[in-house]
Amino acid sequence: MKIVILGGVAAGAKAAAKAKRLLPDAEINLYTDDTHVSYSACGLPYFIEGNFEDFRMLLVRLPEEFEKDGIHIHLKHRAAKILPASKQVLIEIMGENRAFLTDYDKLIIAIGACPIIPKIKNVELKNVFTVRKVEDGIAIKEKAENSEKAVIIGGGYIGIEMLEALVKQNVHTTLIEYAPTIMQNFDDDMSELILKQLREISSDRFEILTSEMATEFSGDNNGVKLVRTGSGKEIEADFVVICAGVKPNIEIAKDAGIILGETGAIKVNEKMETNIKDIYACGDCVEENLLITNTKIWMPLGTNANKEGRTAAVNACGGNDRFAGVLGSAVTRCFSLSMSMTGLTEKKACSLGIETISATVTKNDKVGYMPDVNNITLKLIAEKNTGKLLGCQAIGSGDADKRVNAVTSALLAGLTAEEFLQNDLTYAPPFSPTIDPLLNAAQILAEKIYSSKEL
Amino acid sequence: MKIVILGGVAAGAKAAAKAKRLLPDAEINLYTDDTHVSYSACGLPYFIEGNFEDFRMLLVRLPEEFEKDGIHIHLKHRAAKILPASKQVLIEIMGENRAFLTDYDKLIIAIGACPIIPKIKNVELKNVFTVRKVEDGIAIKEKAENSEKAVIIGGGYIGIEMLEALVKQNVHTTLIEYAPTIMQNFDDDMSELILKQLREISSDRFEILTSEMATEFSGDNNGVKLVRTGSGKEIEADFVVICAGVKPNIEIAKDAGIILGETGAIKVNEKMETNIKDIYACGDCVEENLLITNTKIWMPLGTNANKEGRTAAVNACGGNDRFAGVLGSAVTRCFSLSMSMTGLTEKKACSLGIETISATVTKNDKVGYMPDVNNITLKLIAEKNTGKLLGCQAIGSGDADKRVNAVTSALLAGLTAEEFLQNDLTYAPPFSPTIDPLLNAAQILAEKIYSSKEL
Repeated sequence: MKIVILGGVAAGAKAAAKAKRLLPDAEINLYTDDTHVSYSACGLPYFIEGNFEDFRMLLVRLPEEFEKDGIHIHLKHRAAKILPASKQVLIEIMGENRAFLTDYDKLIIAIGACPIIPKIKNVELKNVFTVRKVEDGIAIKEKAENSEKAVIIGGGYIGIEMLEALVKQNVHTTLIEYAPTIMQNFDDDMSELILKQLREISSDRFEILTSEMATEFSGDNNGVKLVRTGSGKEIEADFVVICAGVKPNIEIAKDAGIILGETGAIKVNEKMETNIKDIYACGDCVEENLLITNTKIWMPLGTNANKEGRTAAVNACGGNDRFAGVLGSAVTRCFSLSMSMTGLTEKKACSLGIETISATVTKNDKVGYMPDVNNITLKLIAEKNTGKLLGCQAIGSGDADKRVNAVTSALLAGLTAEEFLQNDLTYAPPFSPTIDPLLNAAQILAEKIYSSKEL
Repeated sequence: MKIVILGGVAAGAKAAAKAKRLLPDAEINLYTDDTHVSYSACGLPYFIEGNFEDFRMLLVRLPEEFEKDGIHIHLKHRAAKILPASKQVLIEIMGENRAFLTDYDKLIIAIGACPIIPKIKNVELKNVFTVRKVEDGIAIKEKAENSEKAVIIGGGYIGIEMLEALVKQNVHTTLIEYAPTIMQNFDDDMSELILKQLREISSDRFEILTSEMATEFSGDNNGVKLVRTGSGKEIEADFVVICAGVKPNIEIAKDAGIILGETGAIKVNEKMETNIKDIYACGDCVEENLLITNTKIWMPLGTNANKEGRTAAVNACGGNDRFAGVLGSAVTRCFSLSMSMTGLTEKKACSLGIETISATVTKNDKVGYMPDVNNITLKLIAEKNTGKLLGCQAIGSGDADKRVNAVTSALLAGLTAEEFLQNDLTYAPPFSPTIDPLLNAAQILAEKIYSSKEL
């Protein structure tokens, strides 16, 4: 049995390891255009921030460890073409002007995503970075340690994680976001609150510009020096980090006749099979099933990649595993503020034609007399007709992140707000108010739903 | 409409406030034998610990605030007899040798629980405390601030909370537990781990003796000086705190013909109605429905009391509210160690004749390269035949407490381990490993259940 895996960050590395455990005699070759394999891309901002000095902490498993287990890792080997008819892949050895064909019985595509580079004049200048690979992290960290000013383009998850990282490296940072607010994955009321709370934290160490677009970089052979914006601002910068989102790597798959989904990423079923026999796909290059609505969504996250890599490997090895889909859960932090969500936002629900009711509460995260008490704001959303919970968003300096996970299970099970209200969440003064803010929100939501029926 | 409420800590105070909001014209009288009303009894250990200096922080709402809203609070008024036939309560004014009859249209009994005093010789000595009322907290705190050595009797929730409190007041503390391990609400494997981890924290500031019973106190008119144990140990103590559990206050209800449940606490339906018309009961004096098995359980906790008080008031005021029951959720901490649980333990399931399968994992609470990473141990339990989740226990210095709340929702919805495995828990390096320990445990559990079927 010959298993070929393309890509090796999260999904590819997981698939390789799992396949070898299931079929110790299989010949497993993993090809990647990267210089590292099996690393925590999500950890790059925390490395840059200085939480740990050695970038090798990001490496989950080294190539030599894979080799010892009999998994062959081929770094700097780019997959140039998939030939499903002959069950082969054309591999180019990067920097060597050499290519070869390799056979597969099962092919697992895990080629990930790549940063979107906005149309900005002189975007190719030196010291303009993206945050995707280990080298990116090393380069940005080194630059940050020797710089005073930086600009971040984009205020999504990576943008605000980089904001914290650079500020903690004592780099005065300006984040430029073209939309009226940052963290657009959240509903507008919540993302405005995030913006407000981050600006309160700021204290001259950083600035967030919204409704503002970087239109031009200027500099010289030594690199970028200045960022110009659409409104005419000129911001000095020793370096720029572009965090304008990512797009799935799909060219090679599309070229081979693999069907893409409506999101633009590779379409797979819950066994991670593509439309072509013996070709599986997983990780950031595939789209996911959104469990709540059974619609498609693209959620390129390490946790999804990991689960999908596992499922692809089990099925490629003749087993039977399924990855049903996602709930749209995500979390991050920026300084003391944590932001987490699961399920549908109201704007996402609206775009799917679902009528919603929501309740938002701002409450203490624990009993008020505890010394480390902090505020959290929770928004709970339900479908108007059925009362079924659709999603939750939580932000705050308090213990906001894990509260959302009580809602993920509820979404998975299809609970209504009224059913959720009977939840027996743990209580003790250091951990929660007597009535958890989630239940405050559920109470208000259930009453709103009830009233809407009476009208 | 005359509403009489007996008891005013959590359930009674909540019921009074809610009733007044619903029926502003109702005459509401709350009688309590206590000297305070509407306070956080759960907060006493944190007050004693020194997290805040003013005991009034424990008071949620002062009698004068109730009065301003038109709710009459009668402190030091003990309910001596309920007369359901004439719809009256006999009230004794404490310390005044005076009593009177008061009429009610609706009666809400919220008389709570009281500490169990074990049979120990000279237990009535001075400086032997229990932890129930505000005065207890004030007295223990004052004593702790001026003492060097103390003994705690009992290693349950309050016992270990008091252990942390006293040690933080620089009192060398010996906790004596008669069972072979502490925190008996957990399964033995988990409570042994709690004991082990607490002993590792100890560093000469405290000692935990298990399988040991306090048999005698000795001292003089100034109070206790020494605690003798069954094995002959003699432990010096400037004071003793008895944390040997609580029992429901039921005498007055029983005397009135109100039916008690199988747990010994007052039996109510999900509207918080007793068997006698127009008499409701709520809080620590009533038993709860355990949602997972539909059996009865007695869970005297502030959060349950609060919800029950609300439901009792709504229904007493002619509304329609239900409190379906509990999942057995609880949490506490002792120093850096947090301990939480929901649902059935294996030993509880066994006592109910339910065959279980469980999976226990010890994992990082976040990605390993984060500077504040810590271990947590999670035990996930399912019913063997159906795969239905039954419970979860989590302990550790890491972020253990809220993880259990992802399981409460699953228990509420009746999810199986396999269904739970498809959960999309939030992930980012500061908050969780790529695959949350809950999902690791669910994976192992689902595989065990699957294997057990194949045999």
